[in-house]
Amino acid sequence: MSTAERSAKPAEKRSRYDVESLLAVAVEVFGERGYDGTSMDDLARAAGITKSSFYHHVKGKEELLGRSLDRALGGLFAALETAESDDGPAVKRLEGLLRGSVQVLVREFPHVRLLLRVRGNTETERAALARRREFDHRVTALVAAAEAEGDLRSAADPGLTARLLFGLINSLTEWYRPGGGLGERELADAVVDLALSGLRVRPT
Amino acid sequence: MSTAERSAKPAEKRSRYDVESLLAVAVEVFGERGYDGTSMDDLARAAGITKSSFYHHVKGKEELLGRSLDRALGGLFAALETAESDDGPAVKRLEGLLRGSVQVLVREFPHVRLLLRVRGNTETERAALARRREFDHRVTALVAAAEAEGDLRSAADPGLTARLLFGLINSLTEWYRPGGGLGERELADAVVDLALSGLRVRPT
Repeated sequence: MSTAERSAKPAEKRSRYDVESLLAVAVEVFGERGYDGTSMDDLARAAGITKSSFYHHVKGKEELLGRSLDRALGGLFAALETAESDDGPAVKRLEGLLRGSVQVLVREFPHVRLLLRVRGNTETERAALARRREFDHRVTALVAAAEAEGDLRSAADPGLTARLLFGLINSLTEWYRPGGGLGERELADAVVDLALSGLRVRPT
Repeated sequence: MSTAERSAKPAEKRSRYDVESLLAVAVEVFGERGYDGTSMDDLARAAGITKSSFYHHVKGKEELLGRSLDRALGGLFAALETAESDDGPAVKRLEGLLRGSVQVLVREFPHVRLLLRVRGNTETERAALARRREFDHRVTALVAAAEAEGDLRSAADPGLTARLLFGLINSLTEWYRPGGGLGERELADAVVDLALSGLRVRPT
């Protein structure tokens, strides 16, 4: 038996798995079938291991959901805190947050997509929704601060503006695919340019 | 038996149903359970009629899906055609399309939300996805025309700009609820203002 044949043996394949790689498999399956529609059997089949091997690594599918949502929320809150700690004007903090959020979306793509589909059917999901609400409140506060400093027009309510901004960013999960030719920087530039400067040519 | 009691009899309730009212029930159930997860039993139960009464009105759930997607796409294409027939500059046609699309989203809310969740598992869904692609191409052409006329900055590719614009509009289905205090006009103003003028104060 050649080395190549040996390395394809199920036993060898199994030994390569850890929580991290099972999480990567699980989040893809959740993305395809929905969390509620995914069983541990589906996850074990997708990973190519037995269900009992799977349970050796994680307690169940809700643990994997929790880890995935933590990954997405951890990234988004880190971006928020980095932005908030900038001592420039609020509009600069807001721009930093928009760029940081696009970056998290690109880098943690399947986790962010899963977060956006959470509807609150389990304790883990309800905790994630509560953190999303806190995130939204802090974005609204940043928009309000930038309006108060006179750098943003205050045509709409800050809460509505915050929803539109993150609606725009979150909608990327509907069509964007990482590695598909459009880079993280180009995508962030397009989002920030649309949101802050608008598409219309400015009078010179 | 009082009049109120008589009017609550199942037989009387059943007689009030027609295709239109069954469609309204079905689109709500599809929205809650997903189209794939909904059976004719679920639909009959939600409508409060027997499955055989249901089949008296429609051939099956795919007919209801088709009618719902036609409602959404019919509205969106009507908005597109109204906008395209405006003989003003392309940027005005684009603004008209954005406003018209927000209006359709508000007025045909559950149908548009269902359209946006379609993934192409049935012939009816694949036909709807093909019409969505045609819609996107025509939006892209409108963006390109407005750039060519010098009214829109051409920082990003017109296709990317079209995706961002409709990502912004489509994301409204994630949080907006018709009749919840924020009117159609106010919502359209906020979307158009963000997209065309941007949030940042313009130098005066």
